[in-house]
Amino acid sequence: MEIIIAPDSFKESLTSLEVANTIEAGFKEVFPNASYTKLPIADGGEGTVEALIIATKGRVVTTNVIGPLGKKIESFYGICGDGKTVVIEMAASSGLDLVPINDRNPLLTTSFGTGELILEALNAGYRKFIIGIGGSATNDAGAGMLQALGVKLLDKNKKNIAYGGSSLSQLEAIDISGLDYRIKESHIEVACDVNNPLTGLNGASAIFGPQKGATPDMVKRLDNCLVHFSNIVKRDLNKEIANQSGAGAAGGMGAALQGFLDAKLLPGVEIIIEQTKFKKLVQNATLVITGEGRIDGQSIFGKAPVGIAKVAKEFDVPVIAIAGSLGNDVNVVKEYGIDAVFSVVNTPCTLNKALKDAVSNIHLTAKNIAEVIALNNKVKSTCKF
Amino acid sequence: MEIIIAPDSFKESLTSLEVANTIEAGFKEVFPNASYTKLPIADGGEGTVEALIIATKGRVVTTNVIGPLGKKIESFYGICGDGKTVVIEMAASSGLDLVPINDRNPLLTTSFGTGELILEALNAGYRKFIIGIGGSATNDAGAGMLQALGVKLLDKNKKNIAYGGSSLSQLEAIDISGLDYRIKESHIEVACDVNNPLTGLNGASAIFGPQKGATPDMVKRLDNCLVHFSNIVKRDLNKEIANQSGAGAAGGMGAALQGFLDAKLLPGVEIIIEQTKFKKLVQNATLVITGEGRIDGQSIFGKAPVGIAKVAKEFDVPVIAIAGSLGNDVNVVKEYGIDAVFSVVNTPCTLNKALKDAVSNIHLTAKNIAEVIALNNKVKSTCKF
Repeated sequence: MEIIIAPDSFKESLTSLEVANTIEAGFKEVFPNASYTKLPIADGGEGTVEALIIATKGRVVTTNVIGPLGKKIESFYGICGDGKTVVIEMAASSGLDLVPINDRNPLLTTSFGTGELILEALNAGYRKFIIGIGGSATNDAGAGMLQALGVKLLDKNKKNIAYGGSSLSQLEAIDISGLDYRIKESHIEVACDVNNPLTGLNGASAIFGPQKGATPDMVKRLDNCLVHFSNIVKRDLNKEIANQSGAGAAGGMGAALQGFLDAKLLPGVEIIIEQTKFKKLVQNATLVITGEGRIDGQSIFGKAPVGIAKVAKEFDVPVIAIAGSLGNDVNVVKEYGIDAVFSVVNTPCTLNKALKDAVSNIHLTAKNIAEVIALNNKVKSTCKF
Repeated sequence: MEIIIAPDSFKESLTSLEVANTIEAGFKEVFPNASYTKLPIADGGEGTVEALIIATKGRVVTTNVIGPLGKKIESFYGICGDGKTVVIEMAASSGLDLVPINDRNPLLTTSFGTGELILEALNAGYRKFIIGIGGSATNDAGAGMLQALGVKLLDKNKKNIAYGGSSLSQLEAIDISGLDYRIKESHIEVACDVNNPLTGLNGASAIFGPQKGATPDMVKRLDNCLVHFSNIVKRDLNKEIANQSGAGAAGGMGAALQGFLDAKLLPGVEIIIEQTKFKKLVQNATLVITGEGRIDGQSIFGKAPVGIAKVAKEFDVPVIAIAGSLGNDVNVVKEYGIDAVFSVVNTPCTLNKALKDAVSNIHLTAKNIAEVIALNNKVKSTCKF
């Protein structure tokens, strides 16, 4: 029996690898001799490098970069199993979890370290990139990253502006002549599951600023800074970067990646499917198990479990989904290749308790699903069902 | 495919028949052509007659009796499919749901109507009884029932005491010479899942009085009445009725049934197993589905799902259990014949919401379990699992 375990993360609770490991542990109690392939879905946030390294049997490279607060930190990037594709996660270089709660201030935080990781990989000879931009601490429109790669963001004194979202207000001119020429030789895909524009009510500052420590006043200030930045880009480079889908992801990193680096934004699940050659892999599978923190009617719009299920269905491989919570409208996912879907919650409880108990609950649910599958071997005549 | 659906009720939410119907509906979406046998477990409360009638293909007889407040009400009893066994539920004659919330007062409520049902069935020629005593409004030690059957409970003026728990304080002597002689010819089993004594801190008044409307003062008064009653029984009949297991069930009905009618108290699941010839039935089953509002480590001590599973296991028939909520220690039920166990809760929520959503949640869970069973027909080679 060949089982592929390809879940997304359970947000605020477990990474996709942790979910995959837990499902595997539950299944192994019932099917110790089955073959398991874990393909944790990279969602662009923390764990994206780990997920892709696991899924492709790649490796990790550690290094030092400028962290979100402007000080040197340890960081890392990954090399996929193909030996050619670099995986970078912004969470590991410019991430919110790198900033103590009391110091979180997107007026000040910079994406410079993420640019350094790209630069280091370019120096090492790589030209193919997957960049996960979830979990960032920044709201600087990717300005720090651009500076690390040689773009000049000049103030009225023709000096590079300082780090941080608020410094964008000082921007008077952009000079891209110094942008690392090897970027042009590179192919960059960005794992990104949001489609917010750069500015305005649905923009980076308004939607994601508060969780990075922005007060309502700071949100207004940051949004003005992003408007100013996009106006200068338009004037100097004749590029409209504010309204592209995903421009507002990661504090405007989406805009910089698309506008300056010609990067392509894709749902994490599509990148995993491509990178792991999932279409080929699934043809030999008996069963695919997927999952996500929540599965509901909205899951059909690009969410990982449905992305995985669609491919599995092409080859008639059954798919079981395991979720933290289900929506009332969850049945619609059955039309997209998910055969059965279970919640791991097993008693009325608060969200906090469900998040805290996620490992034991996922384990129990996975094991019991496996027990049902195993029933076939328990009934008296074969294939009695 | 022969499927037996034998759940207990989901307390405060659905009767066992409602649970069974919902599981069946979910399974039928996946296996429309399977054969379904529903054996809702009678737990002694409301729905006990219905459950046994369904399980044995019996019928209902309607009649009128004195209700818990002393006024005539419509009531009913059942005749099992064997044509010989009468099923009576106290909830339908002396039940709490028959009393408007503002009128609930166990000082006044009587079990007289339940005695009338027994009498009517005796008159109709029946001698075999199953009596469910859950959901009673009374705390009268079964005094009303005994009076209906001819027992004289005399006050100092040699007159029968009035209805209600508080009247027991007037009791001066008991004369059982008028107890219907046909009781001696009868066999009475009582479906009862509690083992409380008649009096004291774990007695009928203290434990069940408050939910019947007793204030703390009323609880004390009622407990004194039950002590007085058991003392007179001891003095006049030389019988110790207070400390038998289950004596405190249904406001002391357990004591009267055991002490005066020689009834035997049994868990509802054992009665169903016996009455439906479940041991024979299960031998032809492909699968048994059971369930209860909560399943946890305590379920191994006489709860319905484990009772059902133990019998199914004797014949190697797989058992899946569906619960409202699971305990952390639920895995132990696997050692008692339950192969897999699922909670129907599918999102963090309050108990109230879980109770309210029970039908849709059970339906969804049952359907998804069936989908997993059906996977065998979906994988490419037969019996690939």
